[in-house]
Amino acid sequence: MGIRTVQEYKESLRDGRKVYISGEKVDDVTQHRVLGLTVDTIGAGYEMAATDDPAIRDLLVASHPETGEPINRFFVTPRTAEDLRNRTRLIHTLMRTTGGLPFGKDIGTDCLNAAMAVARQMGNPQYEENARNFLEHLRKNDLHTCGAITCVKGDRSKEPSQQKHPDYYLHVVDKNKDGIVVKGAKIHITSAPAANEILVVPTRQMRENEADYAVSFAIPANTEGITFICRNGRGPWSDKEFHPDRPVRELTEAMIVFDNVFVPWERVFMCGEWQFSMYLAYTFATFHRFTAISYKVPSVEVMAGCAVAMAKYNGLFKVGHIREKLADIAAYVETLRALANAAANDPVMYGDIAVPNPLIANMAKLHFAGKYHDFVKLIQDIGGGILATSPDKRDWENPDIHDYLDHYLGGAQEFSTMERLQMIHETMRHVCSHESAFHEVTTVHAEGSMAAQKMMILHESPLKQYEERAKVAAGILPWGSVKF
Amino acid sequence: MGIRTVQEYKESLRDGRKVYISGEKVDDVTQHRVLGLTVDTIGAGYEMAATDDPAIRDLLVASHPETGEPINRFFVTPRTAEDLRNRTRLIHTLMRTTGGLPFGKDIGTDCLNAAMAVARQMGNPQYEENARNFLEHLRKNDLHTCGAITCVKGDRSKEPSQQKHPDYYLHVVDKNKDGIVVKGAKIHITSAPAANEILVVPTRQMRENEADYAVSFAIPANTEGITFICRNGRGPWSDKEFHPDRPVRELTEAMIVFDNVFVPWERVFMCGEWQFSMYLAYTFATFHRFTAISYKVPSVEVMAGCAVAMAKYNGLFKVGHIREKLADIAAYVETLRALANAAANDPVMYGDIAVPNPLIANMAKLHFAGKYHDFVKLIQDIGGGILATSPDKRDWENPDIHDYLDHYLGGAQEFSTMERLQMIHETMRHVCSHESAFHEVTTVHAEGSMAAQKMMILHESPLKQYEERAKVAAGILPWGSVKF
Amino acid sequence: MGIRTVQEYKESLRDGRKVYISGEKVDDVTQHRVLGLTVDTIGAGYEMAATDDPAIRDLLVASHPETGEPINRFFVTPRTAEDLRNRTRLIHTLMRTTGGLPFGKDIGTDCLNAAMAVARQMGNPQYEENARNFLEHLRKNDLHTCGAITCVKGDRSKEPSQQKHPDYYLHVVDKNKDGIVVKGAKIHITSAPAANEILVVPTRQMRENEADYAVSFAIPANTEGITFICRNGRGPWSDKEFHPDRPVRELTEAMIVFDNVFVPWERVFMCGEWQFSMYLAYTFATFHRFTAISYKVPSVEVMAGCAVAMAKYNGLFKVGHIREKLADIAAYVETLRALANAAANDPVMYGDIAVPNPLIANMAKLHFAGKYHDFVKLIQDIGGGILATSPDKRDWENPDIHDYLDHYLGGAQEFSTMERLQMIHETMRHVCSHESAFHEVTTVHAEGSMAAQKMMILHESPLKQYEERAKVAAGILPWGSVKF
Amino acid sequence: MGIRTVQEYKESLRDGRKVYISGEKVDDVTQHRVLGLTVDTIGAGYEMAATDDPAIRDLLVASHPETGEPINRFFVTPRTAEDLRNRTRLIHTLMRTTGGLPFGKDIGTDCLNAAMAVARQMGNPQYEENARNFLEHLRKNDLHTCGAITCVKGDRSKEPSQQKHPDYYLHVVDKNKDGIVVKGAKIHITSAPAANEILVVPTRQMRENEADYAVSFAIPANTEGITFICRNGRGPWSDKEFHPDRPVRELTEAMIVFDNVFVPWERVFMCGEWQFSMYLAYTFATFHRFTAISYKVPSVEVMAGCAVAMAKYNGLFKVGHIREKLADIAAYVETLRALANAAANDPVMYGDIAVPNPLIANMAKLHFAGKYHDFVKLIQDIGGGILATSPDKRDWENPDIHDYLDHYLGGAQEFSTMERLQMIHETMRHVCSHESAFHEVTTVHAEGSMAAQKMMILHESPLKQYEERAKVAAGILPWGSVKF
Repeated sequence: MGIRTVQEYKESLRDGRKVYISGEKVDDVTQHRVLGLTVDTIGAGYEMAATDDPAIRDLLVASHPETGEPINRFFVTPRTAEDLRNRTRLIHTLMRTTGGLPFGKDIGTDCLNAAMAVARQMGNPQYEENARNFLEHLRKNDLHTCGAITCVKGDRSKEPSQQKHPDYYLHVVDKNKDGIVVKGAKIHITSAPAANEILVVPTRQMRENEADYAVSFAIPANTEGITFICRNGRGPWSDKEFHPDRPVRELTEAMIVFDNVFVPWERVFMCGEWQFSMYLAYTFATFHRFTAISYKVPSVEVMAGCAVAMAKYNGLFKVGHIREKLADIAAYVETLRALANAAANDPVMYGDIAVPNPLIANMAKLHFAGKYHDFVKLIQDIGGGILATSPDKRDWENPDIHDYLDHYLGGAQEFSTMERLQMIHETMRHVCSHESAFHEVTTVHAEGSMAAQKMMILHESPLKQYEERAKVAAGILPWGSVKF
Repeated sequence: MGIRTVQEYKESLRDGRKVYISGEKVDDVTQHRVLGLTVDTIGAGYEMAATDDPAIRDLLVASHPETGEPINRFFVTPRTAEDLRNRTRLIHTLMRTTGGLPFGKDIGTDCLNAAMAVARQMGNPQYEENARNFLEHLRKNDLHTCGAITCVKGDRSKEPSQQKHPDYYLHVVDKNKDGIVVKGAKIHITSAPAANEILVVPTRQMRENEADYAVSFAIPANTEGITFICRNGRGPWSDKEFHPDRPVRELTEAMIVFDNVFVPWERVFMCGEWQFSMYLAYTFATFHRFTAISYKVPSVEVMAGCAVAMAKYNGLFKVGHIREKLADIAAYVETLRALANAAANDPVMYGDIAVPNPLIANMAKLHFAGKYHDFVKLIQDIGGGILATSPDKRDWENPDIHDYLDHYLGGAQEFSTMERLQMIHETMRHVCSHESAFHEVTTVHAEGSMAAQKMMILHESPLKQYEERAKVAAGILPWGSVKF
Repeated sequence: MGIRTVQEYKESLRDGRKVYISGEKVDDVTQHRVLGLTVDTIGAGYEMAATDDPAIRDLLVASHPETGEPINRFFVTPRTAEDLRNRTRLIHTLMRTTGGLPFGKDIGTDCLNAAMAVARQMGNPQYEENARNFLEHLRKNDLHTCGAITCVKGDRSKEPSQQKHPDYYLHVVDKNKDGIVVKGAKIHITSAPAANEILVVPTRQMRENEADYAVSFAIPANTEGITFICRNGRGPWSDKEFHPDRPVRELTEAMIVFDNVFVPWERVFMCGEWQFSMYLAYTFATFHRFTAISYKVPSVEVMAGCAVAMAKYNGLFKVGHIREKLADIAAYVETLRALANAAANDPVMYGDIAVPNPLIANMAKLHFAGKYHDFVKLIQDIGGGILATSPDKRDWENPDIHDYLDHYLGGAQEFSTMERLQMIHETMRHVCSHESAFHEVTTVHAEGSMAAQKMMILHESPLKQYEERAKVAAGILPWGSVKF
Repeated sequence: MGIRTVQEYKESLRDGRKVYISGEKVDDVTQHRVLGLTVDTIGAGYEMAATDDPAIRDLLVASHPETGEPINRFFVTPRTAEDLRNRTRLIHTLMRTTGGLPFGKDIGTDCLNAAMAVARQMGNPQYEENARNFLEHLRKNDLHTCGAITCVKGDRSKEPSQQKHPDYYLHVVDKNKDGIVVKGAKIHITSAPAANEILVVPTRQMRENEADYAVSFAIPANTEGITFICRNGRGPWSDKEFHPDRPVRELTEAMIVFDNVFVPWERVFMCGEWQFSMYLAYTFATFHRFTAISYKVPSVEVMAGCAVAMAKYNGLFKVGHIREKLADIAAYVETLRALANAAANDPVMYGDIAVPNPLIANMAKLHFAGKYHDFVKLIQDIGGGILATSPDKRDWENPDIHDYLDHYLGGAQEFSTMERLQMIHETMRHVCSHESAFHEVTTVHAEGSMAAQKMMILHESPLKQYEERAKVAAGILPWGSVKF
């Protein structure tokens, strides 16, 4: 117990959940052409925890702080900078070793850590106990979670209570002694159809007249009234792609509809405390942006590697303006890494929970998102037009034209045409495909828009201190009046 | 004669040409799932020339300057700014009316106009006559052309003559009294499999020891030794897309392999005159960038419209930072339009041929390419995460979940959910799809890289005049020494 | 009559006006160390109109459209694109020939042309007649004007009527049958202390309860109650500067205080018509941004020339990354020129007055202002650290150290050290001096902030057309429903 | 001994050094109008070390690692991240407390730490001993130093040995048993005329035939043959400025001419070891960029404070687009701070010397330099046109116009006009003055150009690792072949 096998995980998904994709109902998500990839991507995390390699096992599996039993390290609530650095290491190692992101425990604990930190502030010991108990439930059963934050929002310029109908933001529609009933829909929920538990957090600040919208809880994925409507994905490798000998990794997002769903009180972390809705949304956002900047590092490393390799295959590695572009690429990746590390190294304590530095985490996320399109442009520039027009693997395998392709699509002479085509196809995934365009959009919107990051940067920056120092310099405040 | 019907055009493509796509040989390009769309996109231009609407007909059909017979207006060699403005009008109208770009006559005449201008410089009357005769052939038979410029290039840091093998740049391998034999491959050739004639122009400056690479000619698409290897395309609308009631418009690029192809002398416009290779490449580039900035205007107008509409559907149209983004979007589109018009209004005369202003055309192209990714990012930002995760049409049509989607995916209340989803899907084509990623790459590379545009801007700018004016201001040159 | 001599102009400034600078009252602005330079800079325009060179005289001096008498060409109200192109030519020639900007008639006619266009809209024939009569007064007496637009504004987030006191925006405090009495202060008024007449235009849109602030008029500079408080300037060449053999050109800005100033009705162009205040401010802004983009071209040409020359003197002209920077510099200058020309070539007619294209003029201004700091950075980068630390002319002339300087501060060998130092000092004026920093600020704020330009771009762009085209593409509007 | 008084420091500068400024010879730099400010700025550091405040004294004064005697903390060679963090703290505290930068010990130890690290590599124990002895000399006598790195360079595209004359780079012209004789000139040397000792380091990589140029040493400022030619500075407060009650802080740069200067062997750290010239230049650059990013933080904090204060004084603090600009300003400052801290937290050990992380230090410097002009533009934008045209203190004090100024130049009502003017004048120092323009140039060029930083970023980034990860992803390298 505490560490499940991948089979146990997969079996747990055959639980009667209601899942749709491309207009079809899915009976077994583990077997579906697209959703099965999501399950396998997450499953790889379970496989890795079962490794015999002690270095990896020690990273993935921690001891329960009280019982000493093995638990997944994501379920260690961070108390120190070292705990935060371990989360980053964990995420990097999972990404690099499995080739994808077994995203779910990270976002689940982003939600739960935030709920715990806020529960304490609200002064309701029941919420704290609920959160603690839910954590033990996750630890004991090694569950996969998704974090349901973004509501569908309707007219973005209107408050929840002003909308055409009351359901554009998820809200409580009934309460009784056993629990609450909620209605609404959460959208863009990563890995949702492959999760055991759904964690719900408010999408924004709520006001006094919106207390019903200030609600946070956890609920199993197969609860009555819940429907997943999934976006389509790329699916497995096609015979047109040059690709490596291991499965596609990808995660699927879903809209989760809550159609009058009952949530027992012991699963509720907030219900009506509108004054704390902002604080919860904000603390979640900080944890989650830290998760984001952690997993983005290995992603952009591979993309940077495509640029380096394509520069070499194209014979351009020593050309002045290409080197300048490679320096820009490296600076983009390494600034992200340095800021992500800095956010872990300088945490803020919310009680005994170590929260990644909110200012630095937001700057890192803004750095990532604000310059991603330029990063992509640089890779496209170095890669060449062939990224758009490359022949595919079936062309390569047709003997009528194979020799033409081999003869004409070579680059610098130390590499084979085949190797160049493999790298072209890998680069296409990252900068010339539906996947790549999808990632541009998620870069802009996932973990909050750039406007949201700027708002938090402004809030967290020492504006008052800047101002005082300027006033001292100007002679408006006396020289000794500000302590340094 | 002079103006073909679309049937005549399609029939002309059943000529035994050798075409491959995704590893399969295509017997009839007009019937192929992907290539048929290219043919129809081009065919729409033929349909339009046959219109009864006199306004459109007068724009598309001109009179032969000598015989007065009707010819396609693209075949009017530009002599004045008005001729250039007419080309732009023609392209805008074709794009807006047919929904796509019947690209081919434009690029063909970009090549031929350049070849004519340079033929005169080379002092070989035969080349001039060949070009004129070929133009008459195009006029008389209303032919569709492709322009084959970019060679496959091998190691980009090496000259043609230093490569692993001599064929990375197309070159003459034999000559006799009847003609020449050429070998090599041209790549990224738009609409190639649907062209009647291929126009070949050198991809770059050649040096004295590369005279065999300084070659330009025209040749029918079904000539012995020519093979087209096409990139795959998106194909027709799927049942997952919300889409309008008219066919997909798209063009396909191909690699064209010239395997010892014979070209008769009367079709040759340059053969060995390496000193003029740069001039030809450069003049072609100017014409072609002008074509590009002409057809990009209607493209980016539609994309800008997606941003405006999505801002409204999302209820964001009056929000301050969204309005600032819309202003950036509008400035991007309108600066492109203003510069494209300015390039036409201020042509440079090469003999009696009006060449669009090379400096302004290159600045316009650099404006378009350098800021396109930011433009896309703004549209993604305004559109929202739904661009990445939108349900598809089969979801919408499944009665189990239709009402959920209709209820939850509405936006500002004056619009229907269906309308919002239609606009989301249109926007996805432009900023979240394989097509959109493909267009990012072509933005960077088509019609020459940004480095190429900067080189030409530097070459065409009055650096010497700037310098003199600074020297006068500095007192290094006497005040009256520079004429203004 | 109609064309004054420079002596007549100077004499006209000895009229009892009340002028302060650096805490001192100035009795004769023509003799003042700093203000005298402003007078001479403007005076150079009078000298030039008196030239014997027919090419220049024909450009500067036009015929009165009715009487045929000679008048300054600035006083020709533009009716055609050619009139606008002539204004640009006039400004370029004045700048290049005199070395500075005899700014005043341009801004004065920017105000008056706008007032005329709006007078017609207001339906008050008296305003039109006043404007026409005032134009005849300017023509007949060849007067120098300043345009007083920007009010001091107090708290920028508050409307005029909500401020701490009513005078933060200039307003009417009394009226009688002879005229009106106004109070307030206009700020940043270029060349004000050297003007004969002050033209006042509202700084912004006014609302119904702010009718007293909707006021426009013209008044002589020596009118009772008017005080000029001038910013200090650089003054004449010092013995530390390497400089050319001609005087410094510079203009001085002033705050103009209107302390209950009486304006006779025949000089009033608007008084209370708050509904038209925005239209007047907006039309003035369009004319004035066109003036700005006209005079900025010769300014940035000289700066670009400093970069070209410094690249050569430093031996860097052929270095790859320097050439890329020079291309960026050239593209900055030439895009400005192309857009400025395009704004003239495509005017909008307000009645029979040709207004420069508002959309293009604003884009040109935004291009200029938005990228100016980068342009400066490129010049600083190419110029080198010596721009900050250069020895001065007194060092050069001290025999103890002259030889050291001559030996060590040489650059590429084809140039003398002296010549390099002259260019360093010229470049310093533009990118490393109080003047250069001053120009950065005026770039951001003069002729309206970038936010103002974005607002006008949004207003003038065909957003509705974009939207319709996107809706047609999406299938929301039927294909034929939009006319192209 | 070990900690000098400011009087001792000043006295030490009256040593017969040869100093020129603006063409005049300076007998006593401590008394000179401009140079005296440099001396006082540095002197403030001596005053501060003599403080009674134990917190400050403990930061500034360390114990000699062997003898335990008090020494200035700059003279502690860094062995750990904590030592590097202490350097940053030291620099921040000096800047904030004295109002300026007592720059000299920092750059001196940047040179000496690098020389020590490289001496070890060269395998010449004498060099190591020389460096150690020189450090003891500095410690014992508490000396002020300058770091002389940049040669005058002549034609930048040519190697030292190809120049018009051999002296464009400092080089050895003679050697004997007692020492060496050097000739050349170093330029842009901050605080040089107020230093006790000059540390010389090569400006770049030297080649085999340039061994005479690979030279590093230390020498007293009054050595025979040394001449300082200083740039002029702003000098003390004028009566036109609103300013605080404490002296101007500023440092002066000088060109240092070495006219056949004799250096004894015991002061030489490199002489002929051209193979190590790059390593020395590179290690110095890393230390020095770390110094730079340390002292830039307090500088830009004050500038950010001007923006915050001006936004408030202008009534703009709550306006949407202003808040977005303030967020950009804060992100600029805080990213610099976070990266500077990260460079200290993750040092690289060169032997037992802790070198600030070269990759992060260079990225921090590039961040600072690459975005500084935009930062300035934002402050100018928020501050308003009044930064360019503000009245001065003499205007304010003239009773004729004082009341006008007080009445009209107020802003938001909670602040006095006087306070707003004080902040305007402080902001002018930073963004609208000769000083501000000077700082733009030094931002671009001091501590190496952005091109130099990009070169080091490229060199230090894990390009090979990126490439391997991409090859694994592409299937070119087997999955398990790369260790993570």
